[in-house]
Amino acid sequence: MRAAVMYGAGDVRVENRPDPRIVRPTDAVVRTLAACVCGSDLWPYRSMPATGTGRPMGHEFLGVIEETGADVTALKTGDLVVAPFTYSDNTCDYCAKGLHISCRDGGRYGVDGGQGEAVRVPYADGTLVKVPAAADPVLVPSLLALSDVMTTGHHGAVTARVGRGDTVLVVGDGAVGLCAVIAARRLGAERIVLAGRHQARTGLGREFGATEVVAERGEEGIARIRELTGGVDKAIEAVGTRQALGTALGAVLDGGIVSRLGVPQYVEGAIGPAEFMRNITLTGGAGPARAYIEQLLPDVLDGTIAPGRVFDETFPLDRAPDAYRAMADRRVLKALLRP
Amino acid sequence: MRAAVMYGAGDVRVENRPDPRIVRPTDAVVRTLAACVCGSDLWPYRSMPATGTGRPMGHEFLGVIEETGADVTALKTGDLVVAPFTYSDNTCDYCAKGLHISCRDGGRYGVDGGQGEAVRVPYADGTLVKVPAAADPVLVPSLLALSDVMTTGHHGAVTARVGRGDTVLVVGDGAVGLCAVIAARRLGAERIVLAGRHQARTGLGREFGATEVVAERGEEGIARIRELTGGVDKAIEAVGTRQALGTALGAVLDGGIVSRLGVPQYVEGAIGPAEFMRNITLTGGAGPARAYIEQLLPDVLDGTIAPGRVFDETFPLDRAPDAYRAMADRRVLKALLRP
Repeated sequence: MRAAVMYGAGDVRVENRPDPRIVRPTDAVVRTLAACVCGSDLWPYRSMPATGTGRPMGHEFLGVIEETGADVTALKTGDLVVAPFTYSDNTCDYCAKGLHISCRDGGRYGVDGGQGEAVRVPYADGTLVKVPAAADPVLVPSLLALSDVMTTGHHGAVTARVGRGDTVLVVGDGAVGLCAVIAARRLGAERIVLAGRHQARTGLGREFGATEVVAERGEEGIARIRELTGGVDKAIEAVGTRQALGTALGAVLDGGIVSRLGVPQYVEGAIGPAEFMRNITLTGGAGPARAYIEQLLPDVLDGTIAPGRVFDETFPLDRAPDAYRAMADRRVLKALLRP
Repeated sequence: MRAAVMYGAGDVRVENRPDPRIVRPTDAVVRTLAACVCGSDLWPYRSMPATGTGRPMGHEFLGVIEETGADVTALKTGDLVVAPFTYSDNTCDYCAKGLHISCRDGGRYGVDGGQGEAVRVPYADGTLVKVPAAADPVLVPSLLALSDVMTTGHHGAVTARVGRGDTVLVVGDGAVGLCAVIAARRLGAERIVLAGRHQARTGLGREFGATEVVAERGEEGIARIRELTGGVDKAIEAVGTRQALGTALGAVLDGGIVSRLGVPQYVEGAIGPAEFMRNITLTGGAGPARAYIEQLLPDVLDGTIAPGRVFDETFPLDRAPDAYRAMADRRVLKALLRP
């Protein structure tokens, strides 16, 4: 089969690799219909040391079950499935709590990437979610968005405890930030301020439900958000930089919640007396996509939400290197790959 | 009147000061029945630069209304009242949310301290809570504990969302930590691990509801707590040091909550990729005592909780300097002062 493999920073190649096969009885092999490049794929794309062996890429995909191991009972050949970005047994204590991201058996690496024609998926029953519909081309992008960006955005709104009437700040106009806007709106937020300066993206954010857009950054951005809102109840930080966290902390009211979705590019951050006296809650983290796919699926199927609109360009799999470059250059918001 | 005034590190004096008077129509003057020395009073006691003017001390007291300003309507001369450790108007947006600590008009400084024979209290209607009972000497210490330590401990349990069946870690065997044990038990925690090494204090912690005590610190402490519990759901950190926060972060399960009650002795702390991937929520802060006094008062009045047991020594007001020294030397857990 053909698959995208990263050999180092800026070096993604599409090459022939062995067809995936069932290794353990809980595995399934999925024939990929659509996959995508994640913002987090851009980290190694910018910094990975050159390697001779290469690393199969991709952890977001939608596909059809091709083969199942002997212990797989909930899925059968021909089922359309969404894959969350990590695999999980769905039976351990963490999965039972809905925290599949911390699954005792789960993980993300060591299996085929999703940016290929087929994928071996461990713990298939626990990992994959069957879609009770055909692969309607109109729905494919939004179903695919459930793999990561939409469920991650939802995690931000859930952990920030967004509710009816809230004023919510979303920091970041990337695909996750835009999906957080969808999620905040879906959970009843009344005002949603989107902090971002890429006009096409913030424009989409407005269509998703953002009521205001703030392009200023840093202290100027905080002042603008406070001027507009008097301070927000909840903030969803979907970037991962110190500056983005600072904007969120500066914009929330005392007693407010800041939920982080961007993997922190820092080890320590501001949690001193100032934040303490203000009773700021810092929450969020890597989202348990598996837990949310079933919750959000009906809204995708009936068109209530259309997170697939974040895919602004589609590339055939063989052009995966172009997809990476376009995303890295911020020419493309999120690239959809078609095997 | 007589009152305790701090003139610098290690220098507390009891001296004659002008009797408090009504300054604004929303003030009340309270004749103090009991007051106490707070752990946070020990910070200036250890580090305050010498000053010629002095700073009146004390923010936890119980007393009787002596006089009220023209706009005070909810209180009258002779009422027994508990004073939360900050004053608040109880009408602003923050107070309406129960976050009196962030009251737009509130604060803590610039008025007489509670460690004196009488105190002027601003925003008396909003600040003071009337006790619907006489000043029963048996109840006085527990009523006084509502000023700060018990309501602060409760804030830890509330913000950590302690609920029935939880396994909770309390880091710190000071008065606030011990009150957090009471609060966690009261909210239904099944197991409460108390991290502390002062045996008299941890012994009281066991009487308050701690099911296990861990004396080890640092990595050894974390290992011991994990060995005992497999990891805790919630942790209440009642010290304020980096090490105490590290213990809490290390002991909680993924998806767990760490609530901080100890004023951080650091400006930045660990909120990097590791904590992010584990979905740790960091919450807590300075507690809104005013919001909780009314909630906890019935349990104090009927003897369900007896947080006043944290007062292990009573000093007459004139011996306030001895009370400070005894607490600073850790010979006394919490000193009660009698004017």
